[in-house]
Amino acid sequence: MPVMTREDVEAFLEREFPQIHHGGRTYTVESVGPMEATMRCAYHERHVRPGGSISGPTMMALADLALYVAILAQIGPVGLAVTTNLSFNFLRKPGQRDLVASCRLLKLGKRLAVGEVTIYSEGEDEPVCHATGTYSIPPR
Amino acid sequence: MPVMTREDVEAFLEREFPQIHHGGRTYTVESVGPMEATMRCAYHERHVRPGGSISGPTMMALADLALYVAILAQIGPVGLAVTTNLSFNFLRKPGQRDLVASCRLLKLGKRLAVGEVTIYSEGEDEPVCHATGTYSIPPR
Amino acid sequence: MPVMTREDVEAFLEREFPQIHHGGRTYTVESVGPMEATMRCAYHERHVRPGGSISGPTMMALADLALYVAILAQIGPVGLAVTTNLSFNFLRKPGQRDLVASCRLLKLGKRLAVGEVTIYSEGEDEPVCHATGTYSIPPR
Amino acid sequence: MPVMTREDVEAFLEREFPQIHHGGRTYTVESVGPMEATMRCAYHERHVRPGGSISGPTMMALADLALYVAILAQIGPVGLAVTTNLSFNFLRKPGQRDLVASCRLLKLGKRLAVGEVTIYSEGEDEPVCHATGTYSIPPR
Repeated sequence: MPVMTREDVEAFLEREFPQIHHGGRTYTVESVGPMEATMRCAYHERHVRPGGSISGPTMMALADLALYVAILAQIGPVGLAVTTNLSFNFLRKPGQRDLVASCRLLKLGKRLAVGEVTIYSEGEDEPVCHATGTYSIPPR
Repeated sequence: MPVMTREDVEAFLEREFPQIHHGGRTYTVESVGPMEATMRCAYHERHVRPGGSISGPTMMALADLALYVAILAQIGPVGLAVTTNLSFNFLRKPGQRDLVASCRLLKLGKRLAVGEVTIYSEGEDEPVCHATGTYSIPPR
Repeated sequence: MPVMTREDVEAFLEREFPQIHHGGRTYTVESVGPMEATMRCAYHERHVRPGGSISGPTMMALADLALYVAILAQIGPVGLAVTTNLSFNFLRKPGQRDLVASCRLLKLGKRLAVGEVTIYSEGEDEPVCHATGTYSIPPR
Repeated sequence: MPVMTREDVEAFLEREFPQIHHGGRTYTVESVGPMEATMRCAYHERHVRPGGSISGPTMMALADLALYVAILAQIGPVGLAVTTNLSFNFLRKPGQRDLVASCRLLKLGKRLAVGEVTIYSEGEDEPVCHATGTYSIPPR
């Protein structure tokens, strides 16, 4: 079971990573659960590419953050976990809507945590992006 | 041999992707060559994570752009090439300095282009990030 | 809905890729469904690493094949689809048991198909390996 | 500088991983050097796919082994280093020839080693496959 609630994680991010809200509040933790978390990225015109599509880097930042939040919720506010690997498949053009990212942890070891993230345009059934990633967890 | 010069590519990005300069000019094409390109990302405090390190998403955006520029320089201003896959290994904490990204194309096919990108903190010998990526090229 | 049954796919593999059975029958198609397939890899001592673990290459071959089978079942016996990208996270040591690989397609486009594969040791709840991959589909 | 010679590494593999020679001697260490190694995979008809191309799993096994050998040569015969992540881009059809894999380590940390591997058909200039991978190194 997670050791932090959704509110705990939000407060931690607010305090430790205020820069993720640079330019306006964008990322929200929707839920945390056993080995999982869901994040939302609010639609904002500064994420937009020509043709109206949300940029790849916006989706990559969201996936990295969803993975971090899922790990944080399970192990508590360690702060120093660092991403070692991220892999993305870009599947479809996202619409001009919020993005929702569902993260599921595949492994939560002593030294490494691995998870996958599926990103949807809000209200759509088919994913726009799929990611897998690894975090290195500092000795506790 | 490339069909666009460094200046051609800069002018194309300026015209087609003005939003990459959102918040201040950050990305510069340093050089293009046969199957390669080098990009620079100017150090800016909005890229910084607690502890002074440059954020992962900043490096990911830089790698994606370096790959795009390398492809564009070889095939001309097609605009609609899209990233299908990106994979990153984060190797070391970047310093509070510019980042320099060297891209080398491994394959430039009719439908797919594949390349690798190595990112350094300016003046350092050991890379901070390594990426590989694939772009899908529209029928011409 | 798939256009080939489990039996169709087995017969196709038998005819076109007899070498996957080199050294003894190992791979079996368990099921195919809409955007998915399940494969089994029979335990055999030639797959074993010191300490009794099944080798990484055995799991990689299984994931690649599961993805191929999932695509084949949806689009029919095209034969010439080729793997362009595969990414693996090795999560736990597999036991001395059969491996079961579940593939789910994330995208089935005209030119590219993308899927993810989760591999389990038979009877275990936690995955031993997770893979994502892309196939390039020839013009039809 | 490496702490094992080419001959040391060959003898270690022979003793600890005899099963990589299952079905006939295939893999040879060509050279080891500072943060690098080169392996050869002898052409053998059991690696062949319809149309004469060498199979993906053969290349994947070669890349994994080249990375292991490069790490082993630098840190000595630890044996228990395990692959945590491998990512492959398949670039061209290999010819009916030996494969040569060049591995370069990008990072050799206390807990993780990361490297890239480029695989060529012997005598060809353009790579057939590119891989990146991570090994977890046991506490020493």
